[in-house]
Amino acid sequence: MRLAPGAIDRILDSWPVARLATLGPDGAPHQVPIVFARVAGRLYSPIDGKPKRGTALARLANVQRDSRVSVLLDHWEADWARLWWLRLDGRARVVAPDEIDAGPIERALRAKYPQYRTLPLFADPPTLLEIEVGRTVSWSAS
Amino acid sequence: MRLAPGAIDRILDSWPVARLATLGPDGAPHQVPIVFARVAGRLYSPIDGKPKRGTALARLANVQRDSRVSVLLDHWEADWARLWWLRLDGRARVVAPDEIDAGPIERALRAKYPQYRTLPLFADPPTLLEIEVGRTVSWSAS
Repeated sequence: MRLAPGAIDRILDSWPVARLATLGPDGAPHQVPIVFARVAGRLYSPIDGKPKRGTALARLANVQRDSRVSVLLDHWEADWARLWWLRLDGRARVVAPDEIDAGPIERALRAKYPQYRTLPLFADPPTLLEIEVGRTVSWSAS
Repeated sequence: MRLAPGAIDRILDSWPVARLATLGPDGAPHQVPIVFARVAGRLYSPIDGKPKRGTALARLANVQRDSRVSVLLDHWEADWARLWWLRLDGRARVVAPDEIDAGPIERALRAKYPQYRTLPLFADPPTLLEIEVGRTVSWSAS
């Protein structure tokens, strides 16, 4: 079964976490959990103030080398009749908020994640991943 | 911060879900949630009786073409001080249970997932993904 279009919209507007897969320097897959907001059909994930492993983030270097990404959202629970997943295949680029009209994106991220009341929305320098979705694939157990 | 080795072992032995990234025919990343059990240092994920999208699973064709995979385990909650993730980079191969000594694997999967009391552990033909872990990378917020 696939997810209904309405369900996909609701998930993309409210689901708090996704997993981003990019391609490493040798073309091998690389994954990391991300937060994101959907604005005007694109997904935006900030490089935020959470502590990170290292300063030069692999996800940024990967996307700058090869823009192809996969974004996976899924629901896990012990009742497997309620499982679903949603995969977006697309292209990502690294943008600075001041390169684009980032006001709506920042507002969407702050509205979705109250954690940004105390945690900086951006690390230094302010950086966003912008993901253009090319293909949406979904699965639902029931 | 990294996860302590003891914490990594506990997670790999008990965490119920992971996300598997493989490489598609064009080398783009592909992701899907998986169940798995760790046996003798390797991860085993069955192609089980849950309904699937199509019969020729992309994850199997992908791994047979390019064995490089990434396996991501992570914890999400609203309290971001408690977030962590664990990423395993490795190689996967497709095996039939009767090619290997699959008894311990089947027992580990059935012990970890009571869902297999009612759902078939294997679809037809019985198939497992066997993942050899090359590198373990972890992150913990605190």
